[in-house]
Amino acid sequence: MTAQLHARGDVAVLVPAAGAGLRLGPGGPKALRLLAGEPLLVHAVRRIAAAPSVRLIVVAAPAAEVDAVRALLAPVAAVIVVPGGAERQDSVAAALAVVPADVGIVLVHDAARALTPPELIESVAAAVRSGRPAVIPVLPVVDTIKEVGPAEPARPDHAPVDVVLGTVDRSVLRSVQTPQGFRRDVLAAAHASGLGAHTDDAGMVEKAGVPVTCVPGSELAMKITRPLDLVIAEALLHVT
Amino acid sequence: MTAQLHARGDVAVLVPAAGAGLRLGPGGPKALRLLAGEPLLVHAVRRIAAAPSVRLIVVAAPAAEVDAVRALLAPVAAVIVVPGGAERQDSVAAALAVVPADVGIVLVHDAARALTPPELIESVAAAVRSGRPAVIPVLPVVDTIKEVGPAEPARPDHAPVDVVLGTVDRSVLRSVQTPQGFRRDVLAAAHASGLGAHTDDAGMVEKAGVPVTCVPGSELAMKITRPLDLVIAEALLHVT
Repeated sequence: MTAQLHARGDVAVLVPAAGAGLRLGPGGPKALRLLAGEPLLVHAVRRIAAAPSVRLIVVAAPAAEVDAVRALLAPVAAVIVVPGGAERQDSVAAALAVVPADVGIVLVHDAARALTPPELIESVAAAVRSGRPAVIPVLPVVDTIKEVGPAEPARPDHAPVDVVLGTVDRSVLRSVQTPQGFRRDVLAAAHASGLGAHTDDAGMVEKAGVPVTCVPGSELAMKITRPLDLVIAEALLHVT
Repeated sequence: MTAQLHARGDVAVLVPAAGAGLRLGPGGPKALRLLAGEPLLVHAVRRIAAAPSVRLIVVAAPAAEVDAVRALLAPVAAVIVVPGGAERQDSVAAALAVVPADVGIVLVHDAARALTPPELIESVAAAVRSGRPAVIPVLPVVDTIKEVGPAEPARPDHAPVDVVLGTVDRSVLRSVQTPQGFRRDVLAAAHASGLGAHTDDAGMVEKAGVPVTCVPGSELAMKITRPLDLVIAEALLHVT
């Protein structure tokens, strides 16, 4: 547990990267898919390590790939790699368990948001440091959003068709990115409670009644999940 | 009104392009911003014209730019250009007014979705042709979505901070694109009613009680509004 980055930092960043991530095509964990010749996880860790508040990074990797991920990341930054669990929240819990007690701020970050700039990591950490117990980076919702349901009556001879139930007021909606930042005790308590286990980390904290507040996100923190996202991300690499 | 494209087509596509579109930076209407050296509107019209069902395209331009837009589009496709109105829906109404009575299907399309493939235009038109009165292309919502409100109590010494009110069930939400397709009489009646004037066109039709149904959208139909979107769109140009 000596994998320190910035000795004076007060932030641990957890990266649950044990998911199979089939959306980018078959074969291999999502976090290891290549972008401009390097795995998404490498891009992500490089940017996390560049944030001066970050004392340590803990990556939860697929159990069978812990050694390989450790070797992959060794040239990039000092990183602790632990085996992840079956569910994303199991991986977050496994990573949280190795964070030293004197680290007061914990961020949880998606490797799929591989181009997240260090400035956004600092911004989330600074908001937690200022006294906000749980902080998420958000963007406005650009497209019109509709709520849909299955069309009735169902026609057995046709593929199911969605019908619009209503137009949602998008002015009160925000698209949520990562890193999500927490006072360490707040995140630990939310995980211990088991509430909201199928939401994001902020969702667990919400269920525990803790106020979650927002900071402005970054278009560069886009989630790279669909094949076309790799094309987009490669273009964004050249402006970062 | 002789600007026909495909004489056997049964579809008119209306492109309200009179907005100032300040989000791409100051100066000039949004639809005329350059992507790879050509205005967004040119990219959009070229792809609309390539859809074999499209008999005519009607562009509503800023009143002061009608002649310029007509000259701009003349080498691209046979297009009718009319002066738009102050509000988007005024522009749609002005464009609808010049569609011949024997055109039964009307699509409304954003010039800012400049890379929308002809296949998506055909898909929306085909769904209307099959008997669905109003059809929108949609994508699933990828990011977690939160509903937010202003944090209380307000602190006069701080910038306003949004607090999360709840996590929205995104499985029932869809991100709406264009072209939105309508049986001509349905769109005309919705515009005549004046209901839902501040929503999208499908929103007006919803308010009139007409079922709006969905077809799968396309990542290429992304809305090009923010400066970084131009970088993304330029990358996507190379895969289309």
